Amino acid sequence: MTLHSAALPEIDEPVDHPGHLMEREIAEQPEVFARLLGASADVAAVAAAIHAQSPHTVMIVARGSSDHAALYLKYLLEVRLGLPTGLCSPSSTTLYGSSPFSAGTLVLGISQSGGSPDLVATLAAARSRGALTLALTNAPESPLATTAELHLPLLAGTERSVAATKTYTAELMAAALLVDALAQLRVGAGGAAATQPFTSGDLLDVPQAATAMLTVREHVARVVETVAALSESNQLLFTARGYGHATAREGALKVMETCYIPSLAFSAADLLHGPFAMLSPTTATVALLASPSPTDPMAEVVDRIVASGSPTITYGPGAPRPGVVAHVVSPHALPAALAPIVDVIAVQYLALELSRRLGLDADAPRALLKVTSTL
Amino acid sequence: MTLHSAALPEIDEPVDHPGHLMEREIAEQPEVFARLLGASADVAAVAAAIHAQSPHTVMIVARGSSDHAALYLKYLLEVRLGLPTGLCSPSSTTLYGSSPFSAGTLVLGISQSGGSPDLVATLAAARSRGALTLALTNAPESPLATTAELHLPLLAGTERSVAATKTYTAELMAAALLVDALAQLRVGAGGAAATQPFTSGDLLDVPQAATAMLTVREHVARVVETVAALSESNQLLFTARGYGHATAREGALKVMETCYIPSLAFSAADLLHGPFAMLSPTTATVALLASPSPTDPMAEVVDRIVASGSPTITYGPGAPRPGVVAHVVSPHALPAALAPIVDVIAVQYLALELSRRLGLDADAPRALLKVTSTL
Repeated sequence: MTLHSAALPEIDEPVDHPGHLMEREIAEQPEVFARLLGASADVAAVAAAIHAQSPHTVMIVARGSSDHAALYLKYLLEVRLGLPTGLCSPSSTTLYGSSPFSAGTLVLGISQSGGSPDLVATLAAARSRGALTLALTNAPESPLATTAELHLPLLAGTERSVAATKTYTAELMAAALLVDALAQLRVGAGGAAATQPFTSGDLLDVPQAATAMLTVREHVARVVETVAALSESNQLLFTARGYGHATAREGALKVMETCYIPSLAFSAADLLHGPFAMLSPTTATVALLASPSPTDPMAEVVDRIVASGSPTITYGPGAPRPGVVAHVVSPHALPAALAPIVDVIAVQYLALELSRRLGLDADAPRALLKVTSTL
Repeated sequence: MTLHSAALPEIDEPVDHPGHLMEREIAEQPEVFARLLGASADVAAVAAAIHAQSPHTVMIVARGSSDHAALYLKYLLEVRLGLPTGLCSPSSTTLYGSSPFSAGTLVLGISQSGGSPDLVATLAAARSRGALTLALTNAPESPLATTAELHLPLLAGTERSVAATKTYTAELMAAALLVDALAQLRVGAGGAAATQPFTSGDLLDVPQAATAMLTVREHVARVVETVAALSESNQLLFTARGYGHATAREGALKVMETCYIPSLAFSAADLLHGPFAMLSPTTATVALLASPSPTDPMAEVVDRIVASGSPTITYGPGAPRPGVVAHVVSPHALPAALAPIVDVIAVQYLALELSRRLGLDADAPRALLKVTSTL
């Protein structure tokens, strides 16, 4: 099954200011979400093919930003469908010749370009051994899309910025739509969703929430301008919990790619298992809060980070915790399970505006190409 | 099933120099491996219980260093046994009430202390839903050990250093012994190991290889003393591939815990997907090579890292690549699949000696306790 993405006009205008491609592609995200919502028949067809085989386990293979989308999808599959999900190490296949996936396992490859040879090799080996295979890509003619039995296109249009933005969030949105469609089929067959962290109706709110997120750019730019610690720190640390973990990892990657500032990302729990020792005034922390409730487990973590002396910037709903140097309020009300699809826009803007402040061009990171081939 | 670890005498001597506990526990590793080899009947009993249920999938739950042991075990299970393996996000259960594991899945918790509530909750939920559960811990009476149906003790003796060393490598050794025992049972039942990356005989060589590794301390100390980039860099980056990925991650964590230097770890493939852009002369890189062959995929990666200007230190067999500032030669000949059990000693010494050079006490990292409780 191969579905084609809508053709988008090629952009061929002069570069007006650094990072203009990235900025434009960030702003395109609401329309990408709307386009994916309009492709529900395609999502339903893929979901039906998966439902018919009732896999007992899902394994996801991806690299870079797409690996963060895989982490988000892992949470959704486990929490909404009760489907145990693992992330693949492609080198298990490409270095050591292992092919551990067979019937009963859904092996899902996620890639913007669909071109990475290690992902293709993993899906090809899995398919040859009887596993059900699915590719999520933005390139319907790519090797990954044609290697997999099923393909779900991301419909994000051509992405020209090296730092992925709209293709990353298209991966998250496609993941949420797919999980929702699978949950509908299960309920229709007399089963029950494991839990109900979001409804089909909530998905319809995503484009509007994304549009609201575009308004945080001005605030983020001001934070970047006024919080000297951001550009003066030797490194940044991103932290979050649960669904937000993917956003923390994506934020760290975006800052490394566009600002060349080494950035770490830990779930709040992993942070406390060791890395917490290195927090100091020379490491700025970006903490992503999930809920305004004082019982949000992140609240206590933020207080401990502040106490370490690390300049702390927070993003999330509600009022700031005491002692943080800046707080960007989340302008949407999506449920926590869907929030990562749009919350990441805040860290995309953080990377973009920080790169500008540092005099860099986010559209042309040194030493990187748009498609990375690894074996 | 609960097996008791041999009682070790408590150490109660005065602190003679910073990091003396960590140094002593690093040096104890050969005898821990020998002790685990002597407990093969216990390993065989656990393996038989697993083999009887023939799980189709393994999910591993762990935090911190133990999560790196989980990554190593994932490779072994996939490559030697063809068993698809995922790493759990405990918050899937503890934050969102998901319990995705049921019969057919082996859920394996790895923890030095066996005390982390999130791991206990994950195993308890999995067991109540019919999954086979196994705990690898150094504490046979711990909540994790008593929650799981099966328990394999690490026999590492009391670990007093906050930075885990001998319990980490005991986890790796126990993992390799368990996978080997499972492979024997499969062959005995007329099946075949998926591939044969190591033999039972190779396991017997591990204590001696570890003893040989203790001799690299002097070389590592000299590298730390003479390579200014190590103590002057704003951050360190560790990279490796495949089996060695766990060692890279453990090296980064050890340096963060004991030296407070932010440290990143990427598989060589993930490094090329974005983070490579930030390499510069202010980031020293530690690259772990797997093989002296010029076709080792790490060789090309090392050359690219050197070309980025990052001061590059390598560890591995054979001669140094051109342009590296220091190369520590691996003094053992274990197969690549077992090398991580002892290779990590090189990065343990790196963290210890670097902390000493920085005037810190590796035995008493700020802001950390020996047992971390997270929910």
